[in-house]
Amino acid sequence: MATHALLEELDVEYQLVEIDLSRQMQKTPEYLAINPNGKVPTLFHNDNIIYESAAILLYLLDQHPESSLSPMTTSPLRGRYYQSLLWMSNTLQEAANRWAHPEQYCDNDAGQKSLKLHASKELKRCWDVIENDLDKAGPWILADSLSGADFHLFMIAYWSRRYESRAQDYPKLQQLLKNLLKRNSIQTMLKQEGLSFEL
Amino acid sequence: MATHALLEELDVEYQLVEIDLSRQMQKTPEYLAINPNGKVPTLFHNDNIIYESAAILLYLLDQHPESSLSPMTTSPLRGRYYQSLLWMSNTLQEAANRWAHPEQYCDNDAGQKSLKLHASKELKRCWDVIENDLDKAGPWILADSLSGADFHLFMIAYWSRRYESRAQDYPKLQQLLKNLLKRNSIQTMLKQEGLSFEL
Repeated sequence: MATHALLEELDVEYQLVEIDLSRQMQKTPEYLAINPNGKVPTLFHNDNIIYESAAILLYLLDQHPESSLSPMTTSPLRGRYYQSLLWMSNTLQEAANRWAHPEQYCDNDAGQKSLKLHASKELKRCWDVIENDLDKAGPWILADSLSGADFHLFMIAYWSRRYESRAQDYPKLQQLLKNLLKRNSIQTMLKQEGLSFEL
Repeated sequence: MATHALLEELDVEYQLVEIDLSRQMQKTPEYLAINPNGKVPTLFHNDNIIYESAAILLYLLDQHPESSLSPMTTSPLRGRYYQSLLWMSNTLQEAANRWAHPEQYCDNDAGQKSLKLHASKELKRCWDVIENDLDKAGPWILADSLSGADFHLFMIAYWSRRYESRAQDYPKLQQLLKNLLKRNSIQTMLKQEGLSFEL
């Protein structure tokens, strides 16, 4: 989802190959040979095969410095750019996954119930961290600069629309999402994937 | 730990400030104002404050392209470099944390027991993925090129020495760790932190 929107944003040629998660196509031997984690997305570019959504994002934007969607490695914003992507990937996104798929972590009902409670609390804490950062220096994650980090956030915020704890219930976060929804790249991605996100 | 070894490897001036985890100093209001996650490490550099170990690593090595510990953004290895750091951070490291601290995710005994079983299985799967990659193209994560990714792996492998599923029990992984242990930077870091790692 984030990769797809960024490919649109960069206005480059690409080919989408659908991996039907409802049919567990991400767990076939052919796909596991490419990405042993059995997760989407995976990028093929030149001779490189890259998995992990945030890694693909970092790689893609490095290839297109003209897009100004990633701070240069010499920019004072580069550290914060890395920090936000790493943190969203291992803290926010992992909490989201524990909430949505507790059965991947624990077999019994009591455990899954407690896991969901903890994950929901952690999700709230994460939205609070982002909301507070946006309040201090918004409207984007890197203050005045729209970056790939905002696209990554959009993806997790989209997932959260059906969670107990939703990104869109925080005013600054909601404004960021509304600003992103105005972009052609996001609209094209949603349309091509048959999704909608009402705020 | 990884940050500390890299600062040694880069041979730059730095000042360590110990955050005593046994006294929960990472949860004080003063520290939380710097890093709202209450985790170590946090880097202060120029006017930047950066948290997330792998983000600090990426940032630090970008500042020192002469070290050749990170592929240039134009290198074909850059994608794999990002992938390995993101994946270790959100998959391997998170599984390690669930195994070591199940109480952070779940309140009841039955749940914690199941969580640990799943985490142990996931850790084994992760070591298998790395061992397989090293077998195809080692001896480092980026084949012939030692990089920051190996230092990040060292940290998690060190933690795992007391786990049920340990990095050092895999031959290629063990060799990588032995190669790292030969480096002055790693030895200095271990000595300064009062740690030892026997293989």
